[in-house]
Amino acid sequence: MKLITPRKPQGFWELMPEEEIVFENMLSKIRKVFENNCFMPLDTPVAEYSEILLAKSGGEVDKEIYRFQKGNNDLCLRYDLTVPLARFVAMNENVLEFPFKRYQVGKVYRGERPQKGRFREFYQCDADIVGENLSITADAECIKLYEDTLGALNLNCYVKISNRKILAGFFEGIGAKNISDLMIIYDKMAKLSEEEIANMFIASGLTVAQVDQTFLLAKQNGDLEAIIAKVEKLSDNPTFLEGISDLKALNERLKYLKMDKKNYSFDLSIVRGHNYYTGTVFEAFIENSNLAIGGGGRYDNLCGNFTERKFQGVGMSIGITRLFDEIKDKFKTDENLVTQVGIVAFDETMLFALSLMTDLRNAKIRADIVGEGKSFKAKMKEANRRKLPYIIVLGEDEMKEKRYTIKDMRSSAQEKLSFDEIVKKLK
Amino acid sequence: MKLITPRKPQGFWELMPEEEIVFENMLSKIRKVFENNCFMPLDTPVAEYSEILLAKSGGEVDKEIYRFQKGNNDLCLRYDLTVPLARFVAMNENVLEFPFKRYQVGKVYRGERPQKGRFREFYQCDADIVGENLSITADAECIKLYEDTLGALNLNCYVKISNRKILAGFFEGIGAKNISDLMIIYDKMAKLSEEEIANMFIASGLTVAQVDQTFLLAKQNGDLEAIIAKVEKLSDNPTFLEGISDLKALNERLKYLKMDKKNYSFDLSIVRGHNYYTGTVFEAFIENSNLAIGGGGRYDNLCGNFTERKFQGVGMSIGITRLFDEIKDKFKTDENLVTQVGIVAFDETMLFALSLMTDLRNAKIRADIVGEGKSFKAKMKEANRRKLPYIIVLGEDEMKEKRYTIKDMRSSAQEKLSFDEIVKKLK
Repeated sequence: MKLITPRKPQGFWELMPEEEIVFENMLSKIRKVFENNCFMPLDTPVAEYSEILLAKSGGEVDKEIYRFQKGNNDLCLRYDLTVPLARFVAMNENVLEFPFKRYQVGKVYRGERPQKGRFREFYQCDADIVGENLSITADAECIKLYEDTLGALNLNCYVKISNRKILAGFFEGIGAKNISDLMIIYDKMAKLSEEEIANMFIASGLTVAQVDQTFLLAKQNGDLEAIIAKVEKLSDNPTFLEGISDLKALNERLKYLKMDKKNYSFDLSIVRGHNYYTGTVFEAFIENSNLAIGGGGRYDNLCGNFTERKFQGVGMSIGITRLFDEIKDKFKTDENLVTQVGIVAFDETMLFALSLMTDLRNAKIRADIVGEGKSFKAKMKEANRRKLPYIIVLGEDEMKEKRYTIKDMRSSAQEKLSFDEIVKKLK
Repeated sequence: MKLITPRKPQGFWELMPEEEIVFENMLSKIRKVFENNCFMPLDTPVAEYSEILLAKSGGEVDKEIYRFQKGNNDLCLRYDLTVPLARFVAMNENVLEFPFKRYQVGKVYRGERPQKGRFREFYQCDADIVGENLSITADAECIKLYEDTLGALNLNCYVKISNRKILAGFFEGIGAKNISDLMIIYDKMAKLSEEEIANMFIASGLTVAQVDQTFLLAKQNGDLEAIIAKVEKLSDNPTFLEGISDLKALNERLKYLKMDKKNYSFDLSIVRGHNYYTGTVFEAFIENSNLAIGGGGRYDNLCGNFTERKFQGVGMSIGITRLFDEIKDKFKTDENLVTQVGIVAFDETMLFALSLMTDLRNAKIRADIVGEGKSFKAKMKEANRRKLPYIIVLGEDEMKEKRYTIKDMRSSAQEKLSFDEIVKKLK
């Protein structure tokens, strides 16, 4: 028979089991934080009807989308977890309790050319609060989640916060018509030179004085009161003023939620690329690093394509793949090893070894037989290859005495212990 | 704007969040059992190259398969977790340690007509042991997993065990040529009458005496020694005798693994439909019910399509959807409620309430604000609708005294407690 080369689809994420354990332990810690904050889990299908997923684009297929037909069904693999959330909320608007707090960890699909750090199938991890007339507390809760989730992984977060109403209101106040174009230019400040940005603004109709004011806005970061003192005279546009008062209220709520002041600050250069954000916006980093590990914000009309009811939403997202790359080496500890102790047994002691293994497992020690049917030398080789931290060598004497020789494979130290002593040692 | 009706793809599984919590807690208990038994987690892509997934069928597309093209890639959504395991093992045969014990919980896709209890997207939960020259201990470990996983859910399992070599050897011994056809007829015994089965056997070339012997085999169940006493004279075919000696060895290993004797028995009527099983086969039920919740067995050449190396495998599978239906009502307990206590606060106490909520969450109590911005009556209504077990009504007096009125929503009993007393009460 002709063999088929075993290959995994290019750009689809797959970890080796030793890493998968670390990844799942990380996810499990994050899930616990979400639930401790009263977010409920959701698990939507990997595929959605194309008319749902492509609603935003008016049905136009993005080249990144995986789309397929089956019978009468026209389906797409989901490219994010937000559209499925909007569909779920609209579909269940009469049975859900609002505000509805949900988190979801799931795979999403983007058929782009794979490159380092970019995947076609990868995990997203989102927490959102959805409701009619959401208070600013919801925004604060989402930001606080970075402190709690990263804290659960023994990392500190750093969140930069702004509000799109300030910039939108400022542009509105100076009579600009192409506000969303101006926001896109503004969002490029980190990547382009000041001169390039200024030229783009002027080409879009701003005066030199207005460009200067825009730069003044973009440079504000740090303490909120100092920022407000510097910018509040720039505009009396009501949206602008609302943005400022939203930030004040948010700051107050973060204080009462006891978020550590060193874990966040305000930074008016933040706008977030997505045009659907309409208020609070934020980006999260690992402390003392430029490694962005997520972001989010407030959007005014989450389910607009699917229902007349106007649901607001605020959500935070964690770039779980990037976060995993950051922590995986730190987390490769004994806690994450599957097998804690290997049992090396011989023909005469193999059946007894099965019972000893069962007793250890019942005591929540992850024990396994090493190299059944192999020679002693091969068993020891296998124990080394598997990097087992401990082994029990089970001869007939040990079986009779019920005291077992346990060997620390790193130090080579050996001792003879009773069952209870072994359990105590390995716990 | 024209609204799009929010619909989820038909036959794709989606739980409401209250049920999702129960489901995930169930999965988490099962995962812990697998890991306690030294199985490693694996998470393969939802899609595989079509040539991999369709290798068995020689590339012929089953009508149940979701297949799609993207650029040069021809992909299928996986229909089980076994082919991805075979691909993974063959792809990593030089880096994996064997025996390789892995478990996987993941979604699979079968585009059949949806009906009650049948889904197009649903979860499978598999544990397999793969290696060259696997000992019968591996088979015993897989069977024992039913006792441990169901035990973790406070259920008892009942496993019926056989070995296909007995039946295959018997047919071989009487000179039958069409053994796999005969096994398919044998597998239908539970569904058809004895007369119908006998006619089918005779049409396939068996004599009346051979049909009687076949029925004798099929009726054997219970204690292994009694079964062997009744059937061992039926054949001296080496495969038949190997099947009997495999069952003896398996029985011995189950005893030393301390599997409770009331949780399993031998039953020669079990064959399992799949032709790829070549030795041990088993089906698992919930005790005192005919509800099959899984099965599995031994296969001789797992990766035959992908590598020259001959890997044996033995695996068990849990029908997680069916199991969930069985346990979900029993598991809807407080443990699974997301919000343990709601805080009803007023304008004057709202900010303080945020701090109290944070302190409770830091103490691992899932606390949430109820109905921010609503009237007192509306807040109480919301607390009822959310079925919150406890609420704290936070007035200015409570805020000053630092003693809080906590109300049991089921009994309506109220008491005034300190923060520490509340934590102790809700833990």
